[in-house]
Amino acid sequence: MPSDIEIAQAANPEPIAGVAARLGIPEEDLVPYGRDKAKVDIGVLREGGGHRAKLVLVTAINPTPAGEGKTTTTIGLADAMRRLGTNAVVALREPSLGPVFGIKGGAAGGGYAQVVPMEDINLHFTGDFHAIGAANNLLAAMVDNHIKQGNELGIDPRRITWRRCVDMNDRQLRNVVDGLGGVADGMPRQDGFDITVASEVMAVLCLSSSITDLKERLARIVVGYTFDREPVRAGDLHAQGAMCALLKDALMPNLVQTLEGTPAFVHGGPFANIAHGCNSVMATRMAMHYGDVAITEAGFGADLGAEKFCDITCRMGGFAPDAVVVVATVRALKYNGGQPKADLATEDLGALAQGMPNLLRHVSNMRDVYGLPCVVAVNRFPTDTEAELALVEEACRKEGVDVRLSEVWAKGGEGGLELAREVLRLVGEPNDFDYAYPSGTPVRRAVEAVARRVYRADGVDFTPQALRQLAELERNGFGNLPVCIAKTQYSFTDDQARLGAPEGFRITVREVKVDAGAGFAVVLTGAIMTMPGLPRHPAAESIDVDETGRITGLF
Amino acid sequence: MPSDIEIAQAANPEPIAGVAARLGIPEEDLVPYGRDKAKVDIGVLREGGGHRAKLVLVTAINPTPAGEGKTTTTIGLADAMRRLGTNAVVALREPSLGPVFGIKGGAAGGGYAQVVPMEDINLHFTGDFHAIGAANNLLAAMVDNHIKQGNELGIDPRRITWRRCVDMNDRQLRNVVDGLGGVADGMPRQDGFDITVASEVMAVLCLSSSITDLKERLARIVVGYTFDREPVRAGDLHAQGAMCALLKDALMPNLVQTLEGTPAFVHGGPFANIAHGCNSVMATRMAMHYGDVAITEAGFGADLGAEKFCDITCRMGGFAPDAVVVVATVRALKYNGGQPKADLATEDLGALAQGMPNLLRHVSNMRDVYGLPCVVAVNRFPTDTEAELALVEEACRKEGVDVRLSEVWAKGGEGGLELAREVLRLVGEPNDFDYAYPSGTPVRRAVEAVARRVYRADGVDFTPQALRQLAELERNGFGNLPVCIAKTQYSFTDDQARLGAPEGFRITVREVKVDAGAGFAVVLTGAIMTMPGLPRHPAAESIDVDETGRITGLF
Repeated sequence: MPSDIEIAQAANPEPIAGVAARLGIPEEDLVPYGRDKAKVDIGVLREGGGHRAKLVLVTAINPTPAGEGKTTTTIGLADAMRRLGTNAVVALREPSLGPVFGIKGGAAGGGYAQVVPMEDINLHFTGDFHAIGAANNLLAAMVDNHIKQGNELGIDPRRITWRRCVDMNDRQLRNVVDGLGGVADGMPRQDGFDITVASEVMAVLCLSSSITDLKERLARIVVGYTFDREPVRAGDLHAQGAMCALLKDALMPNLVQTLEGTPAFVHGGPFANIAHGCNSVMATRMAMHYGDVAITEAGFGADLGAEKFCDITCRMGGFAPDAVVVVATVRALKYNGGQPKADLATEDLGALAQGMPNLLRHVSNMRDVYGLPCVVAVNRFPTDTEAELALVEEACRKEGVDVRLSEVWAKGGEGGLELAREVLRLVGEPNDFDYAYPSGTPVRRAVEAVARRVYRADGVDFTPQALRQLAELERNGFGNLPVCIAKTQYSFTDDQARLGAPEGFRITVREVKVDAGAGFAVVLTGAIMTMPGLPRHPAAESIDVDETGRITGLF
Repeated sequence: MPSDIEIAQAANPEPIAGVAARLGIPEEDLVPYGRDKAKVDIGVLREGGGHRAKLVLVTAINPTPAGEGKTTTTIGLADAMRRLGTNAVVALREPSLGPVFGIKGGAAGGGYAQVVPMEDINLHFTGDFHAIGAANNLLAAMVDNHIKQGNELGIDPRRITWRRCVDMNDRQLRNVVDGLGGVADGMPRQDGFDITVASEVMAVLCLSSSITDLKERLARIVVGYTFDREPVRAGDLHAQGAMCALLKDALMPNLVQTLEGTPAFVHGGPFANIAHGCNSVMATRMAMHYGDVAITEAGFGADLGAEKFCDITCRMGGFAPDAVVVVATVRALKYNGGQPKADLATEDLGALAQGMPNLLRHVSNMRDVYGLPCVVAVNRFPTDTEAELALVEEACRKEGVDVRLSEVWAKGGEGGLELAREVLRLVGEPNDFDYAYPSGTPVRRAVEAVARRVYRADGVDFTPQALRQLAELERNGFGNLPVCIAKTQYSFTDDQARLGAPEGFRITVREVKVDAGAGFAVVLTGAIMTMPGLPRHPAAESIDVDETGRITGLF
């Protein structure tokens, strides 16, 4: 089979203006970026649009090195629905530049279930992440400039929480001392850089519902604390207007299409641990305005991604899913059941059976905690044996869970027809959607609720430091925000080595901080890397471009 | 008179596709970015196009706080030619984001001689600078990653010359220590950030004539030296392909238009001291391909900007100017003649006469050193008196120099008709264009030539450090590159306080380094700031955007 980029480059997509016209987007609302990408004016959402379609969430088991194919399944499912005559529209996250040059490669689906133009989407796309980085770094420059120019607000340089960012895997910038040089050059202090997707500006953009909302959220961002330990906000520095000017185009969702011509809004991409891991509220609402079925995905496994989609994104976005697809692969289930990575191509029914509880717990969460109809999509790999596939189906059936094979990677929409039919049936069913905890729940109780109900922990322990931070959070009026729990994506627990469906464990909260612009409390259960590094042989070394502009070596 | 942004926002420009069609750009070569901006495919230049038009260079006297209006004159001159029925096309630099949020404001012309959409041009435009920043920072990350992963090339961390960059005025980043944290986080070392326009990648992009040329130049970039003091190139790290993939769209010139509908290629914007200060070679050639007269400008005064345009850009771009416009204002000439800034609105014929030699020396350089026909454009201010204007004209006439009043700021193209007629006459005249020094001249002799012939210095002194660096440069095979002299823009000398037309001075070269990708030796005559800071009250504080996306407070 050809590589992803070869498949994508062989495609001859319809001009994006045609895709938009098919969808009913008025010509004056379309802002073209080349022939195959466009932004769409948010006017229709300002007027209350965006709640028409059925909404499908695609989530997955805990990620493993074996790969699950959540994005691929999302795209293929929409293509399959389109083959069945349904006006399906996809909403996805934008990839970050960093991983493209590192180890992960692109993030625009795979095989015959991709969004195109995959090279552009994986590189600068329409410049959204650059705009987010610029807004983040303008605020940082204004913070340090304020101190340099007399520090009227009394910002404590040791308590600045706002970090700079760059959309690159660059571990050299994780921890720096800046402001060196002398009196003319600033104030020496400890500082550091995150990758752009970890910036609160990314989360803010993705949760905003209008330019005005965006500006208000930006103004609320806490950049640090005064010598009197009072929060200092971006609004105190009068930074929100200029930041918003940098972000006004980035706020508009990007329209592209799948290889089969299904419309896709690809927009925003916050981290799924320290942030909420979903594409923008704007993109989901745009898909819900123009489609009959909108299909979106959330980062990492359902314990992190789906939980945040339901408890943060839906709560703030004012929408709710009608059905959930939980993606699994035989390989990943076997890995969860203890089979070593090198052996995943070999049949191992024992390991598979051992791994099944991971899948079943996620499915149970979606049905029992969130009250949503649910189907399992098994993303088929060539090495899967019939016996293995039968085992997955049988184990699910015992729990009353339907399973559908997905072969969209190899066959495009044609490989997802059965899955599509089942999802179309599910979205027509009634559901009892509810959050894992009600709005306004105190942070500590909200964390307990997610840990006990979703992770199935026996309880939550807060370190003394976390308790102090929690008290300060409450004192500053942030004590009842929704919680964004940063936890390893590999396990239901806070220990990445505990695969499967562990029981009898507790979660330890080590740090609590506020993202007041995004509007959630970030609860950290361990050290979360917000600036990746490059591997020994970065993918960048193999990327090339010829005189006609054709890119090679991008995966 | 309304503000620049008010004038720009009141305009109702033709869709850019119409401007392109008028110019004869094939529809398939146009890559739209919204309705009013586009990139143009470089295919026509690959096939040898871009040498058809007459080329006009707009330059100026040494800049002063009073302002000269070079960009405004360039735009108005083209608009005036268009009114006269000439197919004039403008080529300009793109503004940097940093100054927009600092003190300087936008850089898209002024009054009724602007390029639009001015807000977009001053903010992200088509993302070129972000792409340049990303390519610069990818290379930086690959350098540090190489060291972290075993340092096979033996890069000396103390001799890394490649700095990171950000398109922001952020003095806090001028000098940093990065790689802190621990073994997993990198190698602690001294480092620093430049503003993106100071990155060698900017100079490289602006001097490249094809994707292949761009990639070869990127590969030649020297990022530092080994423990054995051998240069390490981007090519040694296999970074050029991925960098080029990031830059392939940025290499295409951007097409916008003036308020009067004159086509303008606005593309690239390197510093005019440590780099060559001209828009891209691609943009100038594009303007020369599609226009009958192409009008471009160069940064700072003629001693820096025009010198580099002639000796670097024309030499590498394979084109030559046919005529030169030297812009001056009565206010700036009086400032050069010693009048204090606060009094510039008051008539002062004495100061004006004292300042005239600055203008006349620049004019003489263009005519006598570079062999080009030349006219002086006096950019009229409301405070200029008739006696002052008469003095300028009389002093010029004595030297055989023609003067034309330019009132394009207040009147648009209508205010530049006389200037346009004179320029159209000049481009029809024969000229004796030549460089200030022949290609292949040793660096030291090239510096001497520019200092003696253009600055009118008595000679050049090299510090011991500069001599050592020069020897190393020669040893590494860079001894015969064209020179890019970094000198204060305010004076012909290397002392910014010596205004007018000083005599009896020498130039001191303090540092010599190579930009092997750009293909020139950078010769520094003093400390050049490559990362500006924000002022006490940054312009950012006043910028705002409303719910419809309309920006205010941007100048």
